[in-house]
Amino acid sequence: MEQNKINIAIVGFGNIGSYFYKILEKNKKAISIKTGKLPFVKYISAKNINKKRRIKIPKSKWIKNYRSLVYMEDIDIIVELIGGPEGAAKKLVFSALKNKKHVVTANKALIAKYGDQLASLAEKNNVNLEYEASVAGGVPIVRSIKEGLIANKINKIYGILNGTTNYILSSMEKKNRSFVEVLDKAKKLGFAETNPISDLNGSDSAAKLRILSSLAFNKAISKNKILTEGIQNINLTDILYAKSLGYKIKLLSISEIIKNKLMERVHPCLILNSSYIAKIDGVLNAVVVDGLPIGKSVLQGEGAGPGPTSSALISDLCSILKGDINFPFGVSSSLRKKISKFDILKHLCSSYLRIEVKDQSGVLSSITKIFAKNKISIKNLIQKPNKKNKKASIIIITHENKEKNFKNLLSGLIKNKFVLKKPTFIRIEKV
Amino acid sequence: MEQNKINIAIVGFGNIGSYFYKILEKNKKAISIKTGKLPFVKYISAKNINKKRRIKIPKSKWIKNYRSLVYMEDIDIIVELIGGPEGAAKKLVFSALKNKKHVVTANKALIAKYGDQLASLAEKNNVNLEYEASVAGGVPIVRSIKEGLIANKINKIYGILNGTTNYILSSMEKKNRSFVEVLDKAKKLGFAETNPISDLNGSDSAAKLRILSSLAFNKAISKNKILTEGIQNINLTDILYAKSLGYKIKLLSISEIIKNKLMERVHPCLILNSSYIAKIDGVLNAVVVDGLPIGKSVLQGEGAGPGPTSSALISDLCSILKGDINFPFGVSSSLRKKISKFDILKHLCSSYLRIEVKDQSGVLSSITKIFAKNKISIKNLIQKPNKKNKKASIIIITHENKEKNFKNLLSGLIKNKFVLKKPTFIRIEKV
Repeated sequence: MEQNKINIAIVGFGNIGSYFYKILEKNKKAISIKTGKLPFVKYISAKNINKKRRIKIPKSKWIKNYRSLVYMEDIDIIVELIGGPEGAAKKLVFSALKNKKHVVTANKALIAKYGDQLASLAEKNNVNLEYEASVAGGVPIVRSIKEGLIANKINKIYGILNGTTNYILSSMEKKNRSFVEVLDKAKKLGFAETNPISDLNGSDSAAKLRILSSLAFNKAISKNKILTEGIQNINLTDILYAKSLGYKIKLLSISEIIKNKLMERVHPCLILNSSYIAKIDGVLNAVVVDGLPIGKSVLQGEGAGPGPTSSALISDLCSILKGDINFPFGVSSSLRKKISKFDILKHLCSSYLRIEVKDQSGVLSSITKIFAKNKISIKNLIQKPNKKNKKASIIIITHENKEKNFKNLLSGLIKNKFVLKKPTFIRIEKV
Repeated sequence: MEQNKINIAIVGFGNIGSYFYKILEKNKKAISIKTGKLPFVKYISAKNINKKRRIKIPKSKWIKNYRSLVYMEDIDIIVELIGGPEGAAKKLVFSALKNKKHVVTANKALIAKYGDQLASLAEKNNVNLEYEASVAGGVPIVRSIKEGLIANKINKIYGILNGTTNYILSSMEKKNRSFVEVLDKAKKLGFAETNPISDLNGSDSAAKLRILSSLAFNKAISKNKILTEGIQNINLTDILYAKSLGYKIKLLSISEIIKNKLMERVHPCLILNSSYIAKIDGVLNAVVVDGLPIGKSVLQGEGAGPGPTSSALISDLCSILKGDINFPFGVSSSLRKKISKFDILKHLCSSYLRIEVKDQSGVLSSITKIFAKNKISIKNLIQKPNKKNKKASIIIITHENKEKNFKNLLSGLIKNKFVLKKPTFIRIEKV
């Protein structure tokens, strides 16, 4: 077996790294049986070697100068778990590929930003660049698009790509709690990071979406500014109104081809309670692939955490051990052309609005006039007066209209003398 | 590109075959870009060449003596779409592998019965045996177990593996219709075959389950007689009682390792309405993989039909075109040992019973005595008298108990003088 040993270096050794190492050690034999090669973690590098860890690492494995790894003849695979699109992670992955080392990474920010360049480099040097763990760890979506669903012409891919926000939204609804209360609890339970901003504002989902749409549509990763709205402004009030109207609020990531152009967006959506995606609660992720000839194929699992992430990292590792050198994005980089952006202002949807107004006579006619002016027709209107404060909430479900008109509607509403604050606007998505 | 052409023969050219051919032709270029090889269908064989087909096949492609294909130097891959575990399909696949031809098949009966021998043969001759289409076509489950979830120690795999029966059960519930009415409709819509017996009696699901458990647990395909009950005796009455108690009835296929032994079973189950599997309606299939470190991973999609099946066949084809020669069951056949069978009589579950009795005094005490005698305790009992007929239905939800005791309970009940017919017995499954 010795001649079949493949040497691995792990760079970045926090929660994920140590769990990955533990699982890899535990499954070494099973892996060698399945792949014909024995994975051996030769070096490990961490910011803080002396940090207290649950597992014992032989001293000989620690390496301080991780940059030297890429030049070592006896290292075959580098597992990058540093994170972040720039700095150490970027330098390491670029130079590893240049030096003909295979790379496994869980770094969505890096792949979303530099994936195209990295893929070219990997192809040029005939090594693998694997990143299953970067998108929805417990859902083998990257491999499924590249292999299991390879025959399909995918026209839409969407889903819940962030477990933290999904946990928050579903807990708010189920436990009737405010955003702040639930966020605090999520932090305590380890479902939200200490600084969860990139989860909450949608940018984590957006990075994953860029990777998925590139894979699904065989195009270069879009550098477009994409519509990204998070859940920070989602109010329990809106969740309850939505519920009473038969909807749930979910943060969806949606990518689709419209008239040969790409529309990518991440934003909270009202979706029908009876829809499949509405049942995905807690920290789960789900990805729906809509393609021909397969129809809708759904993959669901835990999105993050050490277990699912390690599962994804090891599947990447095994693919390398098996010697399957594949194009990182399924097709040669030279064929992955840029795709132009669909003008989001032309996007059609219906929407939910909650408008807080002074409770005076003439309010409703003044408000509905703004709708009429923007040619947005109202499907359903509920007025809830709050006599004590002389305020009222107006809840409106609109018919379908263009994003552009909704934008104008909102500016119109903000300027209206009865409107007390920026209205809540949530798109309704048919899923 | 000519030197990269891979020649394919399709044997069996019904609905699936012609759709597969059409999709393959349409996606030829995309496939060659992704795999580096150009798939070319050189020969097609069908029972009836003159059958009216929607697509036009050049005369030069038709071949009468399909048995000669395995000896042709210019054939690389044989796609077997004849079906059935014996006869022509069996002969073709065995001799193809012996003659070093790669095989792609959708034939679950063949793989469930001869998969082990076929896998050894493929490994010996260094060719692929691919069968993604044999289990849940629209769900890339075979590839996911072998690759995406490769790192996991799977302890349970279960789900809905038959679209026809799932369509029937969910339509009965939603439309309040009898089994016979719904079956007729399913036949008209093409969701059930003219002779749907292998779907209805669970044997189709059982064949798929044998394949999945072998893959999930890295064991030889079990030759055990497995507990297989179909849906032929599921009554609308039971579906409605189940509903009123918060359950749905689904035909589940379940395979798990208990104390290092294998328990496989296919039977109708009462599952909680709130469970994920309860939401899988219509012709959908879903497979849940429960493993470490990933947790629960769910794949869902259309189970059968030309689209999903073709998607699976082409993904198999592409894997061969890429030159990835893998063990057909993920590990070498020599390592896939037999696993002994868990004694199903020791299996624990709670259950639902509907007992039709004469409406006389003393009935209930007589019935509950039989439960007590078998040490089965009752969690919930509903008695519905039907005064007109002097009959009554007794609906019982039991606490957990052994299969053996339930068996004895049923024999006891049948012998009871008040009991009018064999009681309905459905296991309750926690999913």
